[in-house]
Amino acid sequence: MFDPMSRITDPVLASKVTTPERAAELIRPGDTVGMSGFTGAGYPKAVPSALAERIEAAHDAGEDFRINLLTGASTGDEVDGVLARAHGIAKRAPFLSDPTLRRQVNAGEVEYTDTHLSHLAQQVWFGFHGKLDVAVVEVAAILPNGLLVPSSSVGNNKTWLDLADRVILEVNEWQPRAYEGFHDVYYGTRRPPYRMPIELRDPLQRIGDPYLRVDPAKVAAVVRTNAPDRDNSFSPVDQTSQDMAGHLIDFLRHEVRAGRLPENLLPLQAGVGNVANAVLAGLAEAEFEHMTSYTEVIQDNLLALLDSGKLDSISATSFSLSRERAKQFNAEIEKYKGRILLRTQEMSNHPEIVRRLGVIAINGMVEADIYGHVNSTEVNGSTMINGIGGSGDFARNAYLNFFVSPSTAKGGSLSSIVPMVPHVDHTEHDVQVLVTEQGIADLRATAPNERARRIISHCAHPDFRDRLLDYHDRAWRENPTARHAPHILAEALSWHQRAQAGRPM
Amino acid sequence: MFDPMSRITDPVLASKVTTPERAAELIRPGDTVGMSGFTGAGYPKAVPSALAERIEAAHDAGEDFRINLLTGASTGDEVDGVLARAHGIAKRAPFLSDPTLRRQVNAGEVEYTDTHLSHLAQQVWFGFHGKLDVAVVEVAAILPNGLLVPSSSVGNNKTWLDLADRVILEVNEWQPRAYEGFHDVYYGTRRPPYRMPIELRDPLQRIGDPYLRVDPAKVAAVVRTNAPDRDNSFSPVDQTSQDMAGHLIDFLRHEVRAGRLPENLLPLQAGVGNVANAVLAGLAEAEFEHMTSYTEVIQDNLLALLDSGKLDSISATSFSLSRERAKQFNAEIEKYKGRILLRTQEMSNHPEIVRRLGVIAINGMVEADIYGHVNSTEVNGSTMINGIGGSGDFARNAYLNFFVSPSTAKGGSLSSIVPMVPHVDHTEHDVQVLVTEQGIADLRATAPNERARRIISHCAHPDFRDRLLDYHDRAWRENPTARHAPHILAEALSWHQRAQAGRPM
Repeated sequence: MFDPMSRITDPVLASKVTTPERAAELIRPGDTVGMSGFTGAGYPKAVPSALAERIEAAHDAGEDFRINLLTGASTGDEVDGVLARAHGIAKRAPFLSDPTLRRQVNAGEVEYTDTHLSHLAQQVWFGFHGKLDVAVVEVAAILPNGLLVPSSSVGNNKTWLDLADRVILEVNEWQPRAYEGFHDVYYGTRRPPYRMPIELRDPLQRIGDPYLRVDPAKVAAVVRTNAPDRDNSFSPVDQTSQDMAGHLIDFLRHEVRAGRLPENLLPLQAGVGNVANAVLAGLAEAEFEHMTSYTEVIQDNLLALLDSGKLDSISATSFSLSRERAKQFNAEIEKYKGRILLRTQEMSNHPEIVRRLGVIAINGMVEADIYGHVNSTEVNGSTMINGIGGSGDFARNAYLNFFVSPSTAKGGSLSSIVPMVPHVDHTEHDVQVLVTEQGIADLRATAPNERARRIISHCAHPDFRDRLLDYHDRAWRENPTARHAPHILAEALSWHQRAQAGRPM
Repeated sequence: MFDPMSRITDPVLASKVTTPERAAELIRPGDTVGMSGFTGAGYPKAVPSALAERIEAAHDAGEDFRINLLTGASTGDEVDGVLARAHGIAKRAPFLSDPTLRRQVNAGEVEYTDTHLSHLAQQVWFGFHGKLDVAVVEVAAILPNGLLVPSSSVGNNKTWLDLADRVILEVNEWQPRAYEGFHDVYYGTRRPPYRMPIELRDPLQRIGDPYLRVDPAKVAAVVRTNAPDRDNSFSPVDQTSQDMAGHLIDFLRHEVRAGRLPENLLPLQAGVGNVANAVLAGLAEAEFEHMTSYTEVIQDNLLALLDSGKLDSISATSFSLSRERAKQFNAEIEKYKGRILLRTQEMSNHPEIVRRLGVIAINGMVEADIYGHVNSTEVNGSTMINGIGGSGDFARNAYLNFFVSPSTAKGGSLSSIVPMVPHVDHTEHDVQVLVTEQGIADLRATAPNERARRIISHCAHPDFRDRLLDYHDRAWRENPTARHAPHILAEALSWHQRAQAGRPM
């Protein structure tokens, strides 16, 4: 009866195969829904669109229909895009990147709770987000007894499958069946006071199972799909990115020479984006060997570093590849087995593990101020970009952290180094090294005024340097008894006021 | 030859007993010195004063003489006070509370690196603070082979003793010899990539040794003292503190009823100060039993809670008792053995352990803004008060965190709820519950505008509520495309500008 090469070999679950439309009927107005998906990988491809149609029909009929949507991180147009266009999302966590949804968040239509990626799963377990009604999870295959082969991301899927009242599975044949063996799903989590140490000591160490598990009785529908993940292409590495990567890699060299880093460095984490991509490209040319990566996301250049033999292994929770690279990976997947593990994001980003392993964290930023506070999420303190993602999980607990940005934006009219950031995601207590194409500011073990000198002279663009120095000098002179981190409050946000008015800073 | 009841039974170290003046000669200009001391307990009582005299003499002779001073946290007048008055401190980390030193930091004379208390030891191990030249550590007794009985705090003493080139020990006979057995000094720390899981699962579990260790060959001097720790008295619990404690305890009750907390709660951490003191007093009257504490500091009311039988055990790194209570504790010390453990601050505040145990963190704040960012350290964004201490270690990794403050300051002229904080120590991503005498704002799983509504209506003082609502309403209306967390930048810091000018907010 059952083809062992089929994607669904559990007889009970095979009997639940249905259409996306029928599956979407299981989701009701006001439900809290946990969907799979992390940086555009492993998200459901069919049910959310069918749900969006239901929602639009309900709205046309004058009915209210919105859901609270939890995921791993960003998804694809087939989740956040279609649901946002249907005005179907009331609340959203923990991260987003869809332009329509972002616009709705910034229009005040959607309540967005910007959450550390390592925190959401436990917060749902603790009951802080209420009851989880439905899970919609993409997998590569369904095995007997509700064992599931995850697809290109793990994210929060374990938690959604464990906690949801009703489960909808999407089996995506575009995802290689050979993903079996690429995952490590830790089933040792507990709620306090019953938590145990997580016995992970090495980036590639297995501490869990290769499968997700689901109670077959909870599975209300199974949907077959065959659709690719989001195309996560980056622009080619430009000179600015190359310069930033160069400074960062020189700094790592310096730390190795000073005996503060081993010759093969420590496990690398790189955020998603052009700069991280450039750093990874730079590392492919550098002398470091036997590197490892303990990170969230596997992007093209991280895979290239593995291919080059410079990198021994990668632990992550998700892929975020260009369409081209994804095709190639899927075709050659066997050669990566045993060198890549995808974990739950609770583990890939876990403070306990990040601190223990001594991760080197490399993350982008919007801007930093002269005392080393970093804004990663909100333009002018009000407008959400994407969210904090895992930057806080990694940076706060890293052995060494870097925050990286070009020194200017909008054709040089805005400075990424400002007197005071209007929103803080990473405080002065946590930020260690700032990098722009101008240079690098080592803020470790420094007091605020020394930080200001280093940041302004090494990282700020020359067009803004004198004005930043002048701000700091005047703040110092005008505050003889408040010189720990002197500010001129009437001026501190004036750079952003000009930017908000569409003028150069 | 050696009296076994003597405080010094190591023959080699007994031979190194000398005067504070001779010991202080071992400290040279420019040295980085690690001293014991945490919240006014266990700091050296004699050598720093002798050093201050040397420094003053050098200054009188026109010579430069300043040191870089690292400690556990705050010390007493005999360390920070005397050295600050001698203008002997160039750099200071990680926490301070001495008024002279604070004035010097705010005058720009002393570079102060405000550091998470769990981070400093590892940062020194990593080499981020340069070489540690000298350790000056108070102990209760010296046993053979360089085993040391710690005194009333452990702090960073293990790290100072391990890393310093030269060690000066102060043996303080005011500290009970019976401290032997009260400490748990973890010797399993490593630098990455050699770190191991910390196998602590219960607040009172032993994972280390009862003694500090020092290589006797490194000990350059031993000094005998007999002097009390700082008197850490609090003002009696007033109505405002009692109201805040009442709200907080009601909230805990509610969480127990909702099944989100066990009946005996989870391990408590309480910051130092009047509010924490009031909460602890309130818990003594509440119904919770078999509570535990995993915290930094043992203050009078935490000890009272232990005495009352409501609290089973305390893990901390230090005492911070009133003179009266300290005397009583020292007299009755035997009855506390087995119910209190003092650990290194790296362990008492360790993110790994705090998250695993699921600590309930209760910390004071200067102010919070309407979107839930908390300022704990810098008045008007410039003037240092004390430092972040352990509040970040605990709050960021807690199961549940509270930030507590009266809703107004300076006789009602300043609001503790403001449009935008001018300095962020705890970001919106980390702050869960705000408490004032007005009420409580539960910010878990909320988006910024919902937070603003809760904070303004539940926590702000009625005198400021309408203006805060008005600010939020206008910010919302004026920013139709920036409503995620709308601000009016020209006004956001105006409340602090007025406060800085000595006017009501």
